[in-house]
Amino acid sequence: MVGTELRTDPITGRTVAIDLGPFKRRDDFDLEPVRLEDAPATCPLCEGREAEAGPEILAWREGAPANMPGWSVRVVPNRHPMLKIEGRLEVKSDGLFESREGLGAHEVVIETPMHDQPLHALDADRIARVLWAWRTRIQDLKRDSRFVCVVVFKNHGRAAGARLDHSHSQITAYPLIPPSMVDKLRGAARHLSKTGRCIFCDLIAQELKDARRIICDKDAVVAIAPYASRVPFETWLMPRDHAPRFEETTDQVLRILATKLKSVMTGIDWALERPAYNLILHTAPLSGEADTAFHWHLEILPRVTRYSGLEWGTGVFRNPVAPEEAAQILRSKGLP
Amino acid sequence: MVGTELRTDPITGRTVAIDLGPFKRRDDFDLEPVRLEDAPATCPLCEGREAEAGPEILAWREGAPANMPGWSVRVVPNRHPMLKIEGRLEVKSDGLFESREGLGAHEVVIETPMHDQPLHALDADRIARVLWAWRTRIQDLKRDSRFVCVVVFKNHGRAAGARLDHSHSQITAYPLIPPSMVDKLRGAARHLSKTGRCIFCDLIAQELKDARRIICDKDAVVAIAPYASRVPFETWLMPRDHAPRFEETTDQVLRILATKLKSVMTGIDWALERPAYNLILHTAPLSGEADTAFHWHLEILPRVTRYSGLEWGTGVFRNPVAPEEAAQILRSKGLP
Repeated sequence: MVGTELRTDPITGRTVAIDLGPFKRRDDFDLEPVRLEDAPATCPLCEGREAEAGPEILAWREGAPANMPGWSVRVVPNRHPMLKIEGRLEVKSDGLFESREGLGAHEVVIETPMHDQPLHALDADRIARVLWAWRTRIQDLKRDSRFVCVVVFKNHGRAAGARLDHSHSQITAYPLIPPSMVDKLRGAARHLSKTGRCIFCDLIAQELKDARRIICDKDAVVAIAPYASRVPFETWLMPRDHAPRFEETTDQVLRILATKLKSVMTGIDWALERPAYNLILHTAPLSGEADTAFHWHLEILPRVTRYSGLEWGTGVFRNPVAPEEAAQILRSKGLP
Repeated sequence: MVGTELRTDPITGRTVAIDLGPFKRRDDFDLEPVRLEDAPATCPLCEGREAEAGPEILAWREGAPANMPGWSVRVVPNRHPMLKIEGRLEVKSDGLFESREGLGAHEVVIETPMHDQPLHALDADRIARVLWAWRTRIQDLKRDSRFVCVVVFKNHGRAAGARLDHSHSQITAYPLIPPSMVDKLRGAARHLSKTGRCIFCDLIAQELKDARRIICDKDAVVAIAPYASRVPFETWLMPRDHAPRFEETTDQVLRILATKLKSVMTGIDWALERPAYNLILHTAPLSGEADTAFHWHLEILPRVTRYSGLEWGTGVFRNPVAPEEAAQILRSKGLP
């Protein structure tokens, strides 16, 4: 036992216990390759079952009419939404308790018409169409002044919380700043007031100089294994230059992001044997007030470790693979 | 679809989306009853394999010599510790990054000599011995001035993060206040400075008056389904009267806590078909500074929902069962 190192995430201040020593103890994780469990015959997201999936809000299709086959990406309302577009904004309070209606938006991005194609198995052009759908929907949701924040996430595999195998992501818009975003904004604001600079820009500069946690730095989007990685092979994809808002990303950067996402996921699939994973897109609040401090980023979180009493009880994550080790393994694959 | 209500936890401020409407949609959860996967023949925690489990720090035994069979509860060092007793306190820093050695304590409480007895299947006297071990170890760890906080947790079942089936809990002592505890202390301090009172005491008073989320209020320990429950059937066990520190609990209160824990878990086993679960014990920091604001409590977290991209990305939990419904179901079992 080499022991652990307690690291503090420079943005949120959260603590991670990283096991030191080489990446070898496979029994530290649950390696369960993602397998298809749904039958395509009953999948509501498959091509030909458009009515079941719901009326389309947005689609990438060439020629075919709306709500019919012939699309490559399709956005529909979530059938079991956490947040609904109708509702009141006001907060009810009763002594110590405060609540409000689940107002917001909750949409599903169907990433492919085929049942058995994971996002990262699509070619880069088609991944870029999914990112285009994210960007377009955020631009549209921004017009609704009730919404202050959008988070896009993806659950791939049951261990990552997916309920359907058919590849999809979820767009959520909130009438409040969600807690995880509050933590990021607070850290970013603290750094801005101390230094006058964006903490993400400073972080990228320090990582590029250090090089040990860089997975790929060749283009306008860099791939980094974060210093206080919560899970094995956690990866952040970030624009190299300051850019608070994902919805303002150019087609060219979307295309680079798609290429990086595909190549990093190919490396992770190889290193962790096709793990379940989550993707999280963080972009600046819609209101515009954090534009100097924030910097959009896409988090890749392979789900091979479990969320146990330690994480619930303390907020400290235990990660059996050091990010320096993960970055080195991914670099050894010679990513594009 | 009735929709959700967004509730704010009065202590930490975290947001939970509670699905309204009756508890019926079983397909909202993963009901996988906990099953034994380890063979007793190789379990290092079984009676007779004391040398494998490690030298005992504490044990409840009648007559038999240390590190031999004849015990009912046994505390040993964790064989793969996250925190070790030797190490330096100082923080290393490098630009934006800060780290320190994984200094602290990480102990395992073997709750029974038998392989196939879950904690809550033991009789109340034997559960009280486990709580006695927690209390005794906290009293001892407190003498080490390097440690500022202790959290005790338990993982029951693989879905809750357990690596061994044999019933055990874990005691962790930290040279820092862990993030989850920081959130609780910050909320408690805010309430104290506003009102001069303990927020937990005020919360108990409001819940007792309201009654809808009370599971059991008969004794010195109350069982409550928290207003912003993160998971179905989340339950908090708390002393009715102000008590910041678990390590000062009397034998009488330990015995009441053991009885409540057993009866609540019996109800949850029935309602959720023997789910995996976590227990978390939160007690005031060892230093003593939060004694007016804090109030120890034991959290029971059944693990039938998954930690998905939503929770990772936003910190918002989605809970398909309202606590009012869970409390009513548990009350209907006529808990002692």
